[in-house]
Amino acid sequence: MMIFCVMSAGQTRSDMKHVNVIVFNDFTLLDAFGPVDVLGRLKEHYIIDFFSFQGGMICAAQGLRLQSKSFEEIVSHDVLLIPGGFGTRALVTDNEFIGAIAKLVCKAEIVLCVCTASALVAKTGLLDDRKATSNKMALDWVRTQGYSVLWQPKSRWVVDGKFYTSSGVSAGIDMALGFVEDTLSVQVAEKIAASMEYVRNNDPQYDPFARI
Amino acid sequence: MMIFCVMSAGQTRSDMKHVNVIVFNDFTLLDAFGPVDVLGRLKEHYIIDFFSFQGGMICAAQGLRLQSKSFEEIVSHDVLLIPGGFGTRALVTDNEFIGAIAKLVCKAEIVLCVCTASALVAKTGLLDDRKATSNKMALDWVRTQGYSVLWQPKSRWVVDGKFYTSSGVSAGIDMALGFVEDTLSVQVAEKIAASMEYVRNNDPQYDPFARI
Repeated sequence: MMIFCVMSAGQTRSDMKHVNVIVFNDFTLLDAFGPVDVLGRLKEHYIIDFFSFQGGMICAAQGLRLQSKSFEEIVSHDVLLIPGGFGTRALVTDNEFIGAIAKLVCKAEIVLCVCTASALVAKTGLLDDRKATSNKMALDWVRTQGYSVLWQPKSRWVVDGKFYTSSGVSAGIDMALGFVEDTLSVQVAEKIAASMEYVRNNDPQYDPFARI
Repeated sequence: MMIFCVMSAGQTRSDMKHVNVIVFNDFTLLDAFGPVDVLGRLKEHYIIDFFSFQGGMICAAQGLRLQSKSFEEIVSHDVLLIPGGFGTRALVTDNEFIGAIAKLVCKAEIVLCVCTASALVAKTGLLDDRKATSNKMALDWVRTQGYSVLWQPKSRWVVDGKFYTSSGVSAGIDMALGFVEDTLSVQVAEKIAASMEYVRNNDPQYDPFARI
């Protein structure tokens, strides 16, 4: 339950980053809420909010109904966090949705994709020629959404430019902690992991779920 | 994203267990959604729903707003799942809420407490003389909610009778997988963990976050 306030001397509210979490029907809960729990512990760095294409109530996996704002209500395009889940299977064929995701991806400083979220971003074409990964059980399908993406079959997570992509579900927690390490410090990442009593995998190349 | 349907021959819908997830303002997301993600992958075994004292919209940690039914709408008292979080600090002094939790705990076949949820249940008196654990950083406070509970300072999770209590946040995932192993099989628990790409700690006594 510990919250870390590591705002340094001279830091202002304007230094804070908006984390825009994209939600859609039938997204996987842990894909989103793992990284949200990580970044949400850094209240002096990140402002978290939940957005769907048209806003309103979203029905996630396991019947969770949550409220969201619309994409048009996003005020600052700092960090874009996209979960995966069964909902992505329909959304990759929804041109209007993929077009909207493409705009958000273009504007974002950082894009964090968990699990099959990388299929959505691959479909925009904006991952072409970049290294990326995804859920290992779904990788054959994910590949079909972007043949020019340099898919990495053995990675817990991958960083290429502004794109962070992770393997399935719980890998998103390791990726989020890796992002914290990259942008703040390893000490902050370790403290956050300890506060979550989470045994961190801090090596993006260590992937016990890869199909070798 | 894999969903396991391990309904055996002759099993009917009436064999399914209701998992009643208790939500309240400022609960920790991962405390609830980690175990929900685990049990939600067993769609042929568990029906998951979200309940708050009076029902309606709940504002969780990190600003997530989710819809809930009221405690009175619970139809079957099989598995009670209670998350922790900062919200518990106020709730332990809310006699009406604690009284309602006591009733739910009495009726439930199984009680799964994550993190500081054990403070809420300790406050009912129903954990007295039982072994239990909680978030290690909050344990000094949690103890004060139930001096007769046999608090375990070094356990990832503890089972005593119908009570499962876990350490902080991500420990709830290990506890939920342990519950699956105890009630279904180790093979099912391992498959669920793999589908979540989660490196499981299957030893309730292995607690890397204990203060030794």
